[in-house]
Amino acid sequence: MNAPPDIKDHPLVLFMPSGKRGRFPKGTSVLDAARQLGVYVESVCGGRATCGRCQVEVQEGHFAKHKISSSKEHISPFGPKEARYAEKRELPAGRRLSCSATIEGDLVIDVPQDAVINAQVVRKDADNRVIERHPAVNLRYVEVEEPDMHHPLGDLDRLKSQIQKDWGYRRLEVDFHLLGEVQKTLRQGKWAVTAAVHQDEEEEAARIIALWPGLKNEAYGLACDIGSTTIAMHLVSLLSGRVVASAGASNPQIRFGEDLMSRVSYVMMNPDGRQAMTRAVRQEVSKLIDKVTAEGGIERADILDAVFVGNPVMHHLFLGIDPTELGGAPFALAVSGAVKARADDLGLKLNPGARLYMLPCIAGHVGADAAAVTLSEGPHRQDRMMLIVDVGTNAEIVLGNSDRVVAASSPTGPAFEGAEISSGQRAAPGAIERVRIDRQTLEPRFRVIGSDHWSDEPGFAEAVGATGVTGICGSGIIEVIAEMYLSGIISEDGVIDGTLAARSPRIVEQGRTFSYVLTEGEPRIAVTQNDVRAIQLAKAALYAGTKLLMEKQGVDTVDVIRFAGAFGSFIDPTFAMVLGLIPDCELENVSAVGNAAGTGARMALLNRDHRREIEETVRRIEKIETALEPKFQEHFVYAMALPNKVDPFPKLGQQVELPPRKVLAEGEVEGPRRRSREERDARRRR
Amino acid sequence: MNAPPDIKDHPLVLFMPSGKRGRFPKGTSVLDAARQLGVYVESVCGGRATCGRCQVEVQEGHFAKHKISSSKEHISPFGPKEARYAEKRELPAGRRLSCSATIEGDLVIDVPQDAVINAQVVRKDADNRVIERHPAVNLRYVEVEEPDMHHPLGDLDRLKSQIQKDWGYRRLEVDFHLLGEVQKTLRQGKWAVTAAVHQDEEEEAARIIALWPGLKNEAYGLACDIGSTTIAMHLVSLLSGRVVASAGASNPQIRFGEDLMSRVSYVMMNPDGRQAMTRAVRQEVSKLIDKVTAEGGIERADILDAVFVGNPVMHHLFLGIDPTELGGAPFALAVSGAVKARADDLGLKLNPGARLYMLPCIAGHVGADAAAVTLSEGPHRQDRMMLIVDVGTNAEIVLGNSDRVVAASSPTGPAFEGAEISSGQRAAPGAIERVRIDRQTLEPRFRVIGSDHWSDEPGFAEAVGATGVTGICGSGIIEVIAEMYLSGIISEDGVIDGTLAARSPRIVEQGRTFSYVLTEGEPRIAVTQNDVRAIQLAKAALYAGTKLLMEKQGVDTVDVIRFAGAFGSFIDPTFAMVLGLIPDCELENVSAVGNAAGTGARMALLNRDHRREIEETVRRIEKIETALEPKFQEHFVYAMALPNKVDPFPKLGQQVELPPRKVLAEGEVEGPRRRSREERDARRRR
Repeated sequence: MNAPPDIKDHPLVLFMPSGKRGRFPKGTSVLDAARQLGVYVESVCGGRATCGRCQVEVQEGHFAKHKISSSKEHISPFGPKEARYAEKRELPAGRRLSCSATIEGDLVIDVPQDAVINAQVVRKDADNRVIERHPAVNLRYVEVEEPDMHHPLGDLDRLKSQIQKDWGYRRLEVDFHLLGEVQKTLRQGKWAVTAAVHQDEEEEAARIIALWPGLKNEAYGLACDIGSTTIAMHLVSLLSGRVVASAGASNPQIRFGEDLMSRVSYVMMNPDGRQAMTRAVRQEVSKLIDKVTAEGGIERADILDAVFVGNPVMHHLFLGIDPTELGGAPFALAVSGAVKARADDLGLKLNPGARLYMLPCIAGHVGADAAAVTLSEGPHRQDRMMLIVDVGTNAEIVLGNSDRVVAASSPTGPAFEGAEISSGQRAAPGAIERVRIDRQTLEPRFRVIGSDHWSDEPGFAEAVGATGVTGICGSGIIEVIAEMYLSGIISEDGVIDGTLAARSPRIVEQGRTFSYVLTEGEPRIAVTQNDVRAIQLAKAALYAGTKLLMEKQGVDTVDVIRFAGAFGSFIDPTFAMVLGLIPDCELENVSAVGNAAGTGARMALLNRDHRREIEETVRRIEKIETALEPKFQEHFVYAMALPNKVDPFPKLGQQVELPPRKVLAEGEVEGPRRRSREERDARRRR
Repeated sequence: MNAPPDIKDHPLVLFMPSGKRGRFPKGTSVLDAARQLGVYVESVCGGRATCGRCQVEVQEGHFAKHKISSSKEHISPFGPKEARYAEKRELPAGRRLSCSATIEGDLVIDVPQDAVINAQVVRKDADNRVIERHPAVNLRYVEVEEPDMHHPLGDLDRLKSQIQKDWGYRRLEVDFHLLGEVQKTLRQGKWAVTAAVHQDEEEEAARIIALWPGLKNEAYGLACDIGSTTIAMHLVSLLSGRVVASAGASNPQIRFGEDLMSRVSYVMMNPDGRQAMTRAVRQEVSKLIDKVTAEGGIERADILDAVFVGNPVMHHLFLGIDPTELGGAPFALAVSGAVKARADDLGLKLNPGARLYMLPCIAGHVGADAAAVTLSEGPHRQDRMMLIVDVGTNAEIVLGNSDRVVAASSPTGPAFEGAEISSGQRAAPGAIERVRIDRQTLEPRFRVIGSDHWSDEPGFAEAVGATGVTGICGSGIIEVIAEMYLSGIISEDGVIDGTLAARSPRIVEQGRTFSYVLTEGEPRIAVTQNDVRAIQLAKAALYAGTKLLMEKQGVDTVDVIRFAGAFGSFIDPTFAMVLGLIPDCELENVSAVGNAAGTGARMALLNRDHRREIEETVRRIEKIETALEPKFQEHFVYAMALPNKVDPFPKLGQQVELPPRKVLAEGEVEGPRRRSREERDARRRR
């Protein structure tokens, strides 16, 4: 390839991993080239080669079709500024400071993905997704002119105009609390300071929210998911994207009521109920901040931004809003759009200028947590029909693709969480989580949380220890009922077959119905007819909601299923499909995504474009209120059957023929599972 | 004039007093026409004919060159909405609601200037200037859709979008504290609410800062001038512009130091000095708010905006900024630009969403008060060369016109305020304020504050009463020294002529110099040689500063002189010119403008365009630091002479010939005075 002369003077530069490329005049700094191409490379010091945030790797080897013999000829030699930095702060081999290194020939530039100095962060989940960084808060180092009686502009005014000039802000405002600090900080820093500049939206004025003397090279943010049961928090470096520390705690509001509606009732019954619950959750959040700052070895004042998500009731209580309206139709949210505030508005003691962002709520029952899950899994970012299910007391269901996204909440009740089940309990040591039933003898074997042994393996009793076997957790319930169905113990309509009592001592008469007993001796852990009914109701609600959304989308099957939340992490997708919790889908496309709400919160923390993305997506999402849809009841009734492989769109009143039941051998159901036990246990421990 | 058909369908409408005019299709509402022409007519209810704020008068009579026989044919008849309003709330004869009345023919529309319902407010000063209204805070009434499960947008989100739709805001944000209130307010108001919307700058997002159920038809603001000695506050209706109440108080910081520099010293010497002084001034401001709200019969929560001005040290202390840097060169302001905050940031308890605005400071010695005076007097708005002088411990001097404005501060010291004068005192009852000296006998006669009698008139003793004659105030000092000069008692160089002791018992030897004694008996009130020197120094500083600015502007004389502040209100311009405090100017163009700083604050409160105007003007003003100008010392030395009718631009070292002194008859100096004693007294009592 013979390049014309002007192209020879404009070498081609390719940035990895984004793949963005362009030609630049020789002598252009790599940082400038990255910025012109929209490749995000961090820089605090503004090209002074002191912060070291703009490190890149210069790759050797092939580039497009012609070979780069040695990158050394194509990039400027190590300059004095870089040498000084490398001497003082260490620069790994192969790394260059992109603010100092200039383009002298064709180049492949690798923007490093590592955790210490990088512009992007690798998600710790299996899918290796990268969160590109474009945070709302950035550190900006400047050197300010000293005061001059001939031009008596205030210290703050000169600081502002220097930041505007050096960093290209058009409009810049200043938080009030800095007015009293600016003079001292400037003089301490000998007229060099680092400002934290907050700008969440392109159209809004940027604001200086914090100031430090000299060069400040690290700042942090919080990503926090406030669940009804647990609160989970990550402390994240805003400069590298690295998760520095994580912590979780029970939501102390549990003492006011186990589930959401009992907490709303508490507010309605008690004059100070709202205040008490707001105080409780904020105090717990504050304790978590103590934990993560201690673990990360940083000060609260180093935290400059925070993203919170939660279901609508948690969202309102955390913000100090009375959730009473969420307790009854029309389930009116006080605010559904994203909430922007100062952390101080909520009494959170971080840096005095720290900001707070809450993702939008989708509907009265589908909150900011569901929005965060949507942001994390991104149905709107791809073309396959993706179903996201987040099961709690309500199941939040999102279905869609880049064309259209619909969402609903379905009243599953707490059965999936082990409540309303005779031997049900929370997922905790001693709870049965895995069950297999011998298709011939109908004898069960099971595993409990906290032990690696099956109940029929030697050493089980020792492994279980003093705790013993205490009950069945949500995932255990799903498995035992699926196994009961697959073994023929329960029929398609969910009735425990009493005639089997003659064949197995596990089938026991209890009043007018029968139970299936899992344990020998005490405690007696059994699945009663009522338990089966409770799970039938819950799964029918979940499936009816899903069906409604599929109907809205006009599809019979979905391409991808994502189980979010704790329940989703523990459940075995095969059994969920056997029971008919989820619609038909290639099993390899069904996966649990853990705390996707927390991931969504981190995305919104690290990249303000993700805030716009989810705000826009939530505006576009079609909200389906199951209570208002006549079809919901219809789907619900049909979905009571096990499994619900009914005609996907039965007409009301039409006779539905259930498919013939197929009794599977034990091995058969294990086939499509792809994750090993170890993998799943590792997942749970995260 | 035969109008073509299309013009006949587009009648001509003229709005008074602005004179703006345009053609509109028949049926256009008068309010819409006003808006299209940029004529500010208030409206809270958004054209529902309920708030009554948009009243106009439809004039009869001539319009341009053709006669309007009866306006009744040219404007729509009284409609049912207007009738309902008139019945419920009263509508004066001739008034129409501009939102309901439509244009049917050529019209002259008078936007009323009265104090009750109007869009503009008449300044109470002599010049009858009108402050056009365009406040940063406006009330916006809306009717919001009830919540709908099919479209589960939050209550606040629907409210926002309704306001955006009805009132044309592009971007609208909401103060955090309203999140917890919005649902109750909407339900109380049966889905009709009034929002206070703050938007100070066109480019910034508008913000809802307060909410009331139903129609809220009045809102208030504060305009406050924090002086070193006194604090003056106006409570102003943001809807009519009317001053509802005014109050003043001494600045309690006086107990920390009489003048500015002693207060700065107090901060430097005392660890909590800044906090104590900030607390003191804010408490006094809060007491004044109590006073004006009580007098106006309103709640603090009805106050939504506040504008404060003050000199740099007052400005910093009020904002909670350490003023130490203002105590020495380079006199660096912490912030010179306009300050925008929430009143709550300063602990001022108004409406929780109330905003606060402080005008920019011009330089380290020329504060937001001088900016307010500049805004009020508007040298930049006109073509004549205008000199504005605000005399305190420092004299703030502004000189300019629409081409160019220059400003400086001159260290006059406190002599003009009666300090450093042997018999000096503050302007208070008992203080001598007017003096005349008989040119032949050298006998004085004088008047004291609180009495209408001259000392040689019968009834003087009774009028003065128990207080007696206690000292000389600033304006009295000016007059007595000018009269002493005019009577030949002191020479051009300020020496009291001891030889006159032979002619008059008023001239008394005191050590090596002489004094002029005003009173017989006790207390002995005299003008000593040191007093004359103190005034010479002060006036030399003032004149040298003025001269410097005139030199910058390249002028020998000025066209207009404005005396701002208390001293300016009391001083007689004739004597000021005799003594050489001010340069040559037509006496009729010299006037006192009272609390022009307060007027400027009101302008910024009522019209956000005035904020931009003064911000832009202050940016453009050339700041002259007298201490850095070699010429200042030169001018200062020459200006020690009485009067300083020296060569306007003497070269350094050049011999200057003083003009021959002319002894005037007593009557002669009275000649050019245009204001009667009564007028001046009335001015003082305001």
